[in-house]
Amino acid sequence: MTDKSSNISVFERRESEVRSYCRGFDTVFTSAQGSEMTDANGRSYIDFLAGCSSLNYGHNDPDMKNALVEHVMSDGLAHALDLHTDGKADFLESFEKHILGPRKMDHRVMFTGPTGANAVEAAMKLARKVTGRTNIIAFTNGFHGVTMGALAATGNGYHRGGAGMTLNGVTRMPFDGYMGPEFDTVELLEKMLSDRSSGMDAPAAIMLETVQGEGGLNAARPEWVKRVAELAKEHGALLIVDDIQAGCGRTGTFFSFEEMGIEPDIVTMAKSVSGFGLPMALVLVRPEHDIFGPAEHNGTFRGNTHAFVTAKVAIEKFWKDDAFEKDLAVKADLIAEGLASLALMVDGAKMKGRGLMRGVDVGSGELAGEICARAFKKGLVIETSGPDDEVVKILAPLTTSEEMLRKGLSILLDSAREVLDTSKMAAE
Amino acid sequence: MTDKSSNISVFERRESEVRSYCRGFDTVFTSAQGSEMTDANGRSYIDFLAGCSSLNYGHNDPDMKNALVEHVMSDGLAHALDLHTDGKADFLESFEKHILGPRKMDHRVMFTGPTGANAVEAAMKLARKVTGRTNIIAFTNGFHGVTMGALAATGNGYHRGGAGMTLNGVTRMPFDGYMGPEFDTVELLEKMLSDRSSGMDAPAAIMLETVQGEGGLNAARPEWVKRVAELAKEHGALLIVDDIQAGCGRTGTFFSFEEMGIEPDIVTMAKSVSGFGLPMALVLVRPEHDIFGPAEHNGTFRGNTHAFVTAKVAIEKFWKDDAFEKDLAVKADLIAEGLASLALMVDGAKMKGRGLMRGVDVGSGELAGEICARAFKKGLVIETSGPDDEVVKILAPLTTSEEMLRKGLSILLDSAREVLDTSKMAAE
Amino acid sequence: MTDKSSNISVFERRESEVRSYCRGFDTVFTSAQGSEMTDANGRSYIDFLAGCSSLNYGHNDPDMKNALVEHVMSDGLAHALDLHTDGKADFLESFEKHILGPRKMDHRVMFTGPTGANAVEAAMKLARKVTGRTNIIAFTNGFHGVTMGALAATGNGYHRGGAGMTLNGVTRMPFDGYMGPEFDTVELLEKMLSDRSSGMDAPAAIMLETVQGEGGLNAARPEWVKRVAELAKEHGALLIVDDIQAGCGRTGTFFSFEEMGIEPDIVTMAKSVSGFGLPMALVLVRPEHDIFGPAEHNGTFRGNTHAFVTAKVAIEKFWKDDAFEKDLAVKADLIAEGLASLALMVDGAKMKGRGLMRGVDVGSGELAGEICARAFKKGLVIETSGPDDEVVKILAPLTTSEEMLRKGLSILLDSAREVLDTSKMAAE
Amino acid sequence: MTDKSSNISVFERRESEVRSYCRGFDTVFTSAQGSEMTDANGRSYIDFLAGCSSLNYGHNDPDMKNALVEHVMSDGLAHALDLHTDGKADFLESFEKHILGPRKMDHRVMFTGPTGANAVEAAMKLARKVTGRTNIIAFTNGFHGVTMGALAATGNGYHRGGAGMTLNGVTRMPFDGYMGPEFDTVELLEKMLSDRSSGMDAPAAIMLETVQGEGGLNAARPEWVKRVAELAKEHGALLIVDDIQAGCGRTGTFFSFEEMGIEPDIVTMAKSVSGFGLPMALVLVRPEHDIFGPAEHNGTFRGNTHAFVTAKVAIEKFWKDDAFEKDLAVKADLIAEGLASLALMVDGAKMKGRGLMRGVDVGSGELAGEICARAFKKGLVIETSGPDDEVVKILAPLTTSEEMLRKGLSILLDSAREVLDTSKMAAE
Repeated sequence: MTDKSSNISVFERRESEVRSYCRGFDTVFTSAQGSEMTDANGRSYIDFLAGCSSLNYGHNDPDMKNALVEHVMSDGLAHALDLHTDGKADFLESFEKHILGPRKMDHRVMFTGPTGANAVEAAMKLARKVTGRTNIIAFTNGFHGVTMGALAATGNGYHRGGAGMTLNGVTRMPFDGYMGPEFDTVELLEKMLSDRSSGMDAPAAIMLETVQGEGGLNAARPEWVKRVAELAKEHGALLIVDDIQAGCGRTGTFFSFEEMGIEPDIVTMAKSVSGFGLPMALVLVRPEHDIFGPAEHNGTFRGNTHAFVTAKVAIEKFWKDDAFEKDLAVKADLIAEGLASLALMVDGAKMKGRGLMRGVDVGSGELAGEICARAFKKGLVIETSGPDDEVVKILAPLTTSEEMLRKGLSILLDSAREVLDTSKMAAE
Repeated sequence: MTDKSSNISVFERRESEVRSYCRGFDTVFTSAQGSEMTDANGRSYIDFLAGCSSLNYGHNDPDMKNALVEHVMSDGLAHALDLHTDGKADFLESFEKHILGPRKMDHRVMFTGPTGANAVEAAMKLARKVTGRTNIIAFTNGFHGVTMGALAATGNGYHRGGAGMTLNGVTRMPFDGYMGPEFDTVELLEKMLSDRSSGMDAPAAIMLETVQGEGGLNAARPEWVKRVAELAKEHGALLIVDDIQAGCGRTGTFFSFEEMGIEPDIVTMAKSVSGFGLPMALVLVRPEHDIFGPAEHNGTFRGNTHAFVTAKVAIEKFWKDDAFEKDLAVKADLIAEGLASLALMVDGAKMKGRGLMRGVDVGSGELAGEICARAFKKGLVIETSGPDDEVVKILAPLTTSEEMLRKGLSILLDSAREVLDTSKMAAE
Repeated sequence: MTDKSSNISVFERRESEVRSYCRGFDTVFTSAQGSEMTDANGRSYIDFLAGCSSLNYGHNDPDMKNALVEHVMSDGLAHALDLHTDGKADFLESFEKHILGPRKMDHRVMFTGPTGANAVEAAMKLARKVTGRTNIIAFTNGFHGVTMGALAATGNGYHRGGAGMTLNGVTRMPFDGYMGPEFDTVELLEKMLSDRSSGMDAPAAIMLETVQGEGGLNAARPEWVKRVAELAKEHGALLIVDDIQAGCGRTGTFFSFEEMGIEPDIVTMAKSVSGFGLPMALVLVRPEHDIFGPAEHNGTFRGNTHAFVTAKVAIEKFWKDDAFEKDLAVKADLIAEGLASLALMVDGAKMKGRGLMRGVDVGSGELAGEICARAFKKGLVIETSGPDDEVVKILAPLTTSEEMLRKGLSILLDSAREVLDTSKMAAE
Repeated sequence: MTDKSSNISVFERRESEVRSYCRGFDTVFTSAQGSEMTDANGRSYIDFLAGCSSLNYGHNDPDMKNALVEHVMSDGLAHALDLHTDGKADFLESFEKHILGPRKMDHRVMFTGPTGANAVEAAMKLARKVTGRTNIIAFTNGFHGVTMGALAATGNGYHRGGAGMTLNGVTRMPFDGYMGPEFDTVELLEKMLSDRSSGMDAPAAIMLETVQGEGGLNAARPEWVKRVAELAKEHGALLIVDDIQAGCGRTGTFFSFEEMGIEPDIVTMAKSVSGFGLPMALVLVRPEHDIFGPAEHNGTFRGNTHAFVTAKVAIEKFWKDDAFEKDLAVKADLIAEGLASLALMVDGAKMKGRGLMRGVDVGSGELAGEICARAFKKGLVIETSGPDDEVVKILAPLTTSEEMLRKGLSILLDSAREVLDTSKMAAE
């Protein structure tokens, strides 16, 4: 049996100071099933983090597990560069049949290195190559990864500071709602795009998340997204939707933009696309923009066959009809109700997000952090988000049962109540 | 049963034009074991490519396979962000005990996004942060990945062209032997570093591969590498060894630089580090440079627990004593002999590489390509390398039996002979 | 005597296609005095362009002329690098006594290469050196020059396109009034500076013109400029006022910002600073920021002694008491009245600018261009401004007599009337 | 009368710390004629600096002086933007007739802002626009100015450090002789241009000085320059010769490259082009590359009519036949002889330069500085050059009489002797 304390010491001795989540959730996890994780002391936790939306179907889904084990046991390929494999073919066929086809998307699938940042880098490079332009418009509080190309598009100052040099090629514009309800930020974008002397160079692409996961669960209004899409078209720019966190059902539909009446030129996907938490990333590209030469963007692990195997099961299990979507709508309401109760406890608190990607801005990172820390002690893994970590964020597996959701919400509300009582007492 | 032809059609219909290896090896692979791959038609191939050195221990090593299946079946974590897990602890302990400790390396282990490019990006960012400088010196024909930060350091013009914008922050210097044996290129590096008016800004790091895998199997002399390491130290720059392709035993020792008398400040690893071909990447950093704050460089898949499980088995199976190293020395000679025979066939051919990372420069990409294509028809998967793809390159699994190596070499020599005969006939 | 036609042919034969003003004012000018220019055919023109505000004291001011000729005839230095000369000392003493001293400015004077762009480059470099930061905030429709550093801050897309590569290191924000009176753009600046996740890197400087000359005579409100100055201070950024076009009395006071209650850290000057139209540029720097080492920013012509001689005369003639300022207030009103009449002629026309830097936005570049072309035929040199050249702009010498101003305005109004009548007739 | 001491105090009080030459030549100069300068104390100095080659025809040439005074007295234009003026026409006609025509150069003349840096910026921008490429190859120890575009091409680390941010778009290659006589650096350039994996991006231009003035008077061999020119052509790059310091007769012919058998696509000129030390700069462009649109590169002072007037006189006085060139050959020998005597005094000293742009590398900046300081005390203005200021450099006016040259050389040799004696004594 694993001894927790000895294990912890090796992290302190040998793991880099860059480690982060383990600092807040200071135990050694050993197994997980569905929406629950277990640590080395046998303690069980409800998971409202879900690998930052990488485990939308929960941990170790039995059907994916079986398919993966069968694949491994039969010496299916683990690594195949970008060779043709049956695993990749099967994935592509499922993805075409159940995802792209029904949504009338003619996009080609580019397998990039299996990280979201790699998909974003590929998307940005491709947009620049297609248009012959450099400038990519990204938004305040956007998060797109921390490799140098993607990091230029990421808003977070702490991550940008890690670059060690100036980040180029991106113009920043205010996201929907950034200046409050009085000022529609798309008007500034429109003005600057139209004004030949605005200093905004003609854009290769406009890149956005429809809900900014890391940036504080800011959900753009459909009409705002639609207007941005129109502006991209009018100005010869590609529209890139970064659906890495908001995709794969997180907002209630497979893609986060399905009901917005837009057709992105490029979509980036990662996190939950393998279904099982395995590294996998995709860039969906409209055929006319599919102009990279062979291996022009490459990477050793762009063919993670294990991930293809589980991804196929995920698609066929959850997306071949609309049952799952309907179920998500119910759960989204349940989460929204729970969070509304939380919001009522804190003066000035604001509901954030959309679908099953929701939270409450409690006004300060300190308070949000205390609530999450208290919740962890009570057996709930939950994290914050936003520029000052001021949003308590729920990213539960989409497959979490209503009962488990209620249980988790109850822990969260208790935690918040205790923290608020303590601070009220301290203030008195 | 998988039908090959239908499968192929989905690739043409839906996979991006960026796909590459599958164009040269035009079949659908379905399984693999050790050094052999099998396609949908039941045909078997000897694998002298090994996932570009990502499968140094062959396909589906039985011990790793069993460990992985056991982990999955017991609901071990698949995805855990950078939380503490028993899988990660076990890996770290093995890596410390069998790899770092015996080599007296006090480096900390940074888990980056599971691609080589991500490890390189992290290393470059870190060197800039540590030194407060921007410039990183990289070498002609170096290959470090295609995300924007790493791509700046990559020499290949085709890949650089994919950037769609100017790549910044890197100064290029000629690699060892670049101007032939008469001119020691380290002298130019030394002169430019010392000359206050050379236009070379003070470097944050000097980054090199000891053997340039993609660049044509150019092996640097130990004394050249050592002098570069000294210059880095003298000029306040960090030394980054990119051991992504040359590490994990490929040159005959675990790290490619073990017998060079240097202590790199940073080492990047990926490809074979998981042992099983699963996505995983590491940055090894000397403790005094381990200054990233929590999550300052982050990424969703930096904790691929499946890869930790197989990586631990790989270390304990192959590196706990020197038996494997001794075995590698024998095989390296065997490969060198075979390639010497190939070199004899072609006027002006040159032996390239070191250890089990060897090839023959046959003078033109066309000839090298024809030889590899012919070999594939005969059941051997083998690729080219170099700026003009002029090097026939062997990257067989290190675990390939001598018998299998001989068989593969024999196919290669036959293929070369046939191609050369044909072209000789055509010329007559 | 100069023959106009032969002279014109050498321009077509040998001068680069980059030539511009000469295309609109297609004659060969041979002499000028005060506010009038004469061409090779003996024709005389009223000058409402004044070298784009480089001739604020008119052409060939007799006192400056005499001083210059005396200097030349007595073998005064023409070129002296940045050696001490009596000419430079005399200029500095006058500038200190009549300009800096009375305004309680303790700034040091940096002589840069004698172009506005060079002064801007020096200012931007210095701000980056002082703060250790890279990002400089500039504004929509700002114009700061076309060398690569300055061009990054310039908004005009046509000029930016001439760069041939991406321009880095500048963040663009909307200038005062950019989104109309409803939305105060300084609020966006404030929000983005305060938001740690806005994607706006901590700025080295905020650089602005108080009236944007090339950008369309957009005059910022004093309270807006003051708030920007406060934000710069709060966020550790330097405030750079680019007073190249708006300075030297153009807005009615020597500096354009005198009545705004701000103390810029850096002020750039050029155009009219020599008084005589001779190349000269200055950067005024607060002593604590005067940290360039000797020659760290240099340039061969940073000591144009001829310009120092005339600049001294200009200061002593016009700025030793407030008589000139009072005179300017009267003329500013006169110009405003004249332009108000013009504005009344065109539906939707808008008055632009401040002081003696005024114009009318007539709604289209075509109309503005036709009015100016017609005026030139009638003997008035006048130009347009703005992103679409839609503003008819008056930059008459500040020394223009009221009578001459009235005469010029009368030509302008006649020209506008004729153009509008013609287009009305065409429409009917 | 000017009082020296009071004048000096204003420099300390109000001039920026960036001032430089005045620190070494610490007096206040008041007048100059031919090759002599006079200070406020009536002391006279021989000028072997000539405004860093901006005063190739000496101070206040009487013919230029008369022409300029006549122009000013007759109200000739001082400032005319880029309007057609008789002064510009006259200059262009002379330049065509006596300079371009006889040398069979069909170049167009672009008037840029009147600084060398501005000409270089325009040249670099134009090369990028013409080729659609970004990369410009520049050389070790090259000096091209300190504005951000030009500074990227400048080698000097002190000046580069003033940028405050990373300088982009330039690849650095070793100049002729950089690695000693054994290694021809053009071979490295050729290899890197031809190697598709060298990491050198396809260049927009190769930019060089034939003699590096600031970099230490490194004179490239004609065959090296010719080979570079051929490589530029082969690889679709423009050849830019920066003739700002070496042009206008400094090397013995009007252009420094006249006898090298090359035809540069672009030539930059400044410093002595006005003849009188007045700010003026030119870019000469082959007609097929003259593709800037009107004002695409602009600048207020691109029409310094005073400079046109003196420039015309300079051309007609010195360059309408070959008398001046013949005279220069004699003087070049005289300078070379004098410097040879200096070189004999110092162990390991090396002769540098070509034509009337010569010096001696005395091995250390300290020694060179002491020699120049001693010479100044004896009435000779002379400066150092090179990465460590280790070269004693003569840039006397080309019009200096042989007698004055001998006198200056004699002071220099005496100064060197005294300094060397003192240090020898100190050592004993």
